[in-house]
Amino acid sequence: MNKVEKKEYVFSVEIPVRDYELDAEGIVNNANYLHYMEYTRHCFCQEAGYSFGQMGEAGIVPVLSNVEVDYKTPLRSGDVMLSKLWIERRGVRFVFHQDIYNKATGKTVINGVASVVCVEDGQLSRGEKLAEAFKPYLK
Amino acid sequence: MNKVEKKEYVFSVEIPVRDYELDAEGIVNNANYLHYMEYTRHCFCQEAGYSFGQMGEAGIVPVLSNVEVDYKTPLRSGDVMLSKLWIERRGVRFVFHQDIYNKATGKTVINGVASVVCVEDGQLSRGEKLAEAFKPYLK
Amino acid sequence: MNKVEKKEYVFSVEIPVRDYELDAEGIVNNANYLHYMEYTRHCFCQEAGYSFGQMGEAGIVPVLSNVEVDYKTPLRSGDVMLSKLWIERRGVRFVFHQDIYNKATGKTVINGVASVVCVEDGQLSRGEKLAEAFKPYLK
Amino acid sequence: MNKVEKKEYVFSVEIPVRDYELDAEGIVNNANYLHYMEYTRHCFCQEAGYSFGQMGEAGIVPVLSNVEVDYKTPLRSGDVMLSKLWIERRGVRFVFHQDIYNKATGKTVINGVASVVCVEDGQLSRGEKLAEAFKPYLK
Repeated sequence: MNKVEKKEYVFSVEIPVRDYELDAEGIVNNANYLHYMEYTRHCFCQEAGYSFGQMGEAGIVPVLSNVEVDYKTPLRSGDVMLSKLWIERRGVRFVFHQDIYNKATGKTVINGVASVVCVEDGQLSRGEKLAEAFKPYLK
Repeated sequence: MNKVEKKEYVFSVEIPVRDYELDAEGIVNNANYLHYMEYTRHCFCQEAGYSFGQMGEAGIVPVLSNVEVDYKTPLRSGDVMLSKLWIERRGVRFVFHQDIYNKATGKTVINGVASVVCVEDGQLSRGEKLAEAFKPYLK
Repeated sequence: MNKVEKKEYVFSVEIPVRDYELDAEGIVNNANYLHYMEYTRHCFCQEAGYSFGQMGEAGIVPVLSNVEVDYKTPLRSGDVMLSKLWIERRGVRFVFHQDIYNKATGKTVINGVASVVCVEDGQLSRGEKLAEAFKPYLK
Repeated sequence: MNKVEKKEYVFSVEIPVRDYELDAEGIVNNANYLHYMEYTRHCFCQEAGYSFGQMGEAGIVPVLSNVEVDYKTPLRSGDVMLSKLWIERRGVRFVFHQDIYNKATGKTVINGVASVVCVEDGQLSRGEKLAEAFKPYLK
């Protein structure tokens, strides 16, 4: 993952590990981090005034085009994570920089980047409606 | 679970355990058996000539109303299961009797029962279309 | 599901729906309710002073032997649920009566019953250690 | 994702979509691709003579350190995928290049890269045992 200059986070949510998310090694399975990341983006969108459901009604479908995850330290049973993000716009893409920390230890759990594009009326859009909603949060 | 007279199975599918389905005990997590049961019902419907997608196009939405599972012996990494079912009609309900066996040992993994009703055009239906498709399999 | 006389709940937890838990019908997939039920039991155990992790260290493995779910009204994107339980002891089994409600509407989402037995040192136990921990909550 | 010269695949497995893997958009949820990728790697390891279970017995724990996915065309209900991989060694990392295709249309579904390191006896190893098993497949 290319290093990006670290910006200030604009959103944070606390998520407890659920035991069914663990795998046979006793650590959270790698795929669940994409769940955490998606859940965090959706919580953020809701806070920004544009819930996933409202986007659907407005004919906007956000589509994940790329995701990258660096796994640093695993989460275990009983852990609580802080899932944070900041966001930038690159052309038609909204790039969510998403990091997860272990609440108790402060250690980095993952560093992730998710790129999202908008489909409106079945076509790739420039994402102006979303950009308007995200304006206060965009760097 | 009330004992029912065991009928002959009308459908069987072989499913290998995927390691991400294991939990911290090294056994398949209890919720995944509902996934296996649903997948088996959908495979059966496809064989009966009425895939999940085709039902949607025909305006039929099968809705799970009740499920019960007796957990007998757990599945582990590397195991392959045989997932079998037979079906009966009770009023508006289609009752799927679903049992899963460990392919290598023959041991019973779970005994399950899933009751499904049909919603057509937003209303509970008598399920006549589905009954027609399931006719060769109904006891 | 046989009707049981409704007792007072001894534990309740609030859980927001996560969008990845929805299926193609736009409602929470049936298997996720077993996840919610397990998560609720584990939160309860933690409150009762015996977390899932601590049980493991004490050589106690709680094993789900049977589960039954009546699906009443589906949960959708944006919904928040109240997941409640009360518990009774029947022989070696701990029976968790678990109901989930839609927080906004108050409607019943599911009625569920989960039966758990204890394995200690690889053998089915009478569950005395757990019964001790659950004492203040047992009816 | 940096372009890499495309090598010949050394392993391929056919996986049908399961309907519970779909989300509210009617397409496979993004996180499930990490499940497909993990399942494909584990099938490959088994073919290479070193199953996930056997690694555990040999004291080798393969750990995912980084994953990247480019989402190209979504999978839907009824689709079958061909999940393919080739592998290279970069220092202590095993890099799995994993692509998934729609079997019916031949279209690329995702391009993915997963980097795995080996932990032996609790310490990051040079992965010599795994390299020996993978020798016939390594470029």
